[in-house]
Amino acid sequence: MTACRPSLAVVGATGAIGGVMLQILSQHADVWGEVKLIASPRSAGRKLVVRGEESEVLELTEDVFDDVDVALFLVPDEVSAQWAPIAAAKGTVVIDDSAAFRLDADVPLVVPEINPHAVRIRPRGIVASPNCTTLALIVAVGALHAEFGVRELVVSSYQAVSGAGREGVAALREQLSMVAGTELGTKPGDVRRALGDTEGSPFAAPVALNVVPWAGTEAGDGWSSEELAIREECRKVLDLPGLRVAATCVYVPVVATHSMSVHARFENEIAVDRAHEILATAPGVVLYDSPAAGDFPTPSDVVGTDPTWVGRVRRSLDDPRGLELFVCGDNLRKGAALNVAQIAESVAAEFPQRS
Amino acid sequence: MTACRPSLAVVGATGAIGGVMLQILSQHADVWGEVKLIASPRSAGRKLVVRGEESEVLELTEDVFDDVDVALFLVPDEVSAQWAPIAAAKGTVVIDDSAAFRLDADVPLVVPEINPHAVRIRPRGIVASPNCTTLALIVAVGALHAEFGVRELVVSSYQAVSGAGREGVAALREQLSMVAGTELGTKPGDVRRALGDTEGSPFAAPVALNVVPWAGTEAGDGWSSEELAIREECRKVLDLPGLRVAATCVYVPVVATHSMSVHARFENEIAVDRAHEILATAPGVVLYDSPAAGDFPTPSDVVGTDPTWVGRVRRSLDDPRGLELFVCGDNLRKGAALNVAQIAESVAAEFPQRS
Repeated sequence: MTACRPSLAVVGATGAIGGVMLQILSQHADVWGEVKLIASPRSAGRKLVVRGEESEVLELTEDVFDDVDVALFLVPDEVSAQWAPIAAAKGTVVIDDSAAFRLDADVPLVVPEINPHAVRIRPRGIVASPNCTTLALIVAVGALHAEFGVRELVVSSYQAVSGAGREGVAALREQLSMVAGTELGTKPGDVRRALGDTEGSPFAAPVALNVVPWAGTEAGDGWSSEELAIREECRKVLDLPGLRVAATCVYVPVVATHSMSVHARFENEIAVDRAHEILATAPGVVLYDSPAAGDFPTPSDVVGTDPTWVGRVRRSLDDPRGLELFVCGDNLRKGAALNVAQIAESVAAEFPQRS
Repeated sequence: MTACRPSLAVVGATGAIGGVMLQILSQHADVWGEVKLIASPRSAGRKLVVRGEESEVLELTEDVFDDVDVALFLVPDEVSAQWAPIAAAKGTVVIDDSAAFRLDADVPLVVPEINPHAVRIRPRGIVASPNCTTLALIVAVGALHAEFGVRELVVSSYQAVSGAGREGVAALREQLSMVAGTELGTKPGDVRRALGDTEGSPFAAPVALNVVPWAGTEAGDGWSSEELAIREECRKVLDLPGLRVAATCVYVPVVATHSMSVHARFENEIAVDRAHEILATAPGVVLYDSPAAGDFPTPSDVVGTDPTWVGRVRRSLDDPRGLELFVCGDNLRKGAALNVAQIAESVAAEFPQRS
């Protein structure tokens, strides 16, 4: 009886991540009773399809959380900061995809493949899901950590423009249309001049025919907020407050799927065959690592898929405890909607099955 | 009297790097007597302009090196391997841009800003210039090394497609024309399918709307030749046979200028202000590091310029001996033609000035 399953609310149902969430809810084993779709007043009233049925989008109000067991928040930080505690006060378990609560000591930060137990201890009634950049690497690194004990990560990202929202995608597509078919990219500033005033672009430099080594806001001492987020979130998810992390975040002209070059140093010596074995069998990981055959993950192949893809796995030549890898993960799926859905499904299992 | 200056030959004058070399020869202080332009029989007879004068391209033969004091080899490895010793046997000093002799113990590998002295000891009469990826980082790292003593480098590259030659540039331009104005880049393999058979592309995966974590050939244990080249060449130029280097080479959809995210660990503790000072005054380096103002190097700004640009300089949060930086260098200028020209100019200074 569907009515006895926990009820669900999707807050931010009309956004980019909300759209992916509706797909996932329609594809995954259905553990939910009623599903409410919720959005800002501007989007309320629209009709969306979930689980094969049309549903009207409701306006975000306090009352909308009455009788909602679990709410997925897929909204900007400030909306979560305001509304997640309101929902939680009603007894709703909130799974929040924003940055608002990720580093709150009373909010667990959960990646179901890595720290599923953490979801149960949630003093504020809120569970947070990590940043899309953290999620692109943590599943692979966490699997290796369980065997070898990770001590240090040096990470360089190749981030997709959708990490900067719909404006990021629009900026790339517009800029590509302006540079395609030209001879641009060979003289100082020629791309920048051809693009003119890139109004509306969230990037401080051209993102077509270019890379932009900056993501997020200033976080002091030359670091960007996204770089520090990777460090703090990896430490929290792995429960390793002393983990050494040095991240550099760089946008590349890719629509969706974040890639990362990872240098990991472990407590124990690495047997590369064993590392391969671990990655080949780890939940949520696909090992795709045969460069001779052209098999390594690239965003073009990984986009739209659920797992973290790992390739270019090799032992550091000058350090028996070091391992290099290249990982790709879809920032809109595992990097956002999928991880939230997985957390929610693990919470759903807590509800008594009254069938 | 021009006739008393050393004579020069440019071998490979009709290629992409040859073209940049002719520009540089026309722009730099003129230290050369006669300049011969040399190419394969296929290109011989063409007329090119250097130093404001038209010159006919000569065919590469043994005799062409008669009376040539210095020859710049801007040709594929196998051409250098065959012809550089022939020229050297005639008493010509060969400056070779190919990989053929870079790791030969009897051939110095020279970056004039870092190890200018090495050019004088050349038992085979050949001097080699490093790979464009090495050159993108070595000038900045070498300057820091002189003060702090570098012990380890973790490098992830964002390499321009021109590093794969004219075919690389042609592949990117063609692919961009096919994906611009589309909604591609959001479904598994959609870019690959839209591009179809990317015949003639030197890349194993799409390079438009994608990144390709492979450069060069297989070098064993999962490493690519380009990754090992960075390691071996940094060690040789810095004269640090024990330097720990872990490089990951990745092509990005950029026409020219290689970028690198560098995590460097030094023997001595880093004062980040002092690191800034060193980089701001090091020859061949431009420090461009004020992220709050949007000032960090990107390929679009750096392409066509001579120096190595450095930004995002910050001390590692978890290691007082660690420093993070992001460097950009034009792979066709400092990464190829310019470094060869600088080496040649230092050799020219050895010749007695008979004015």
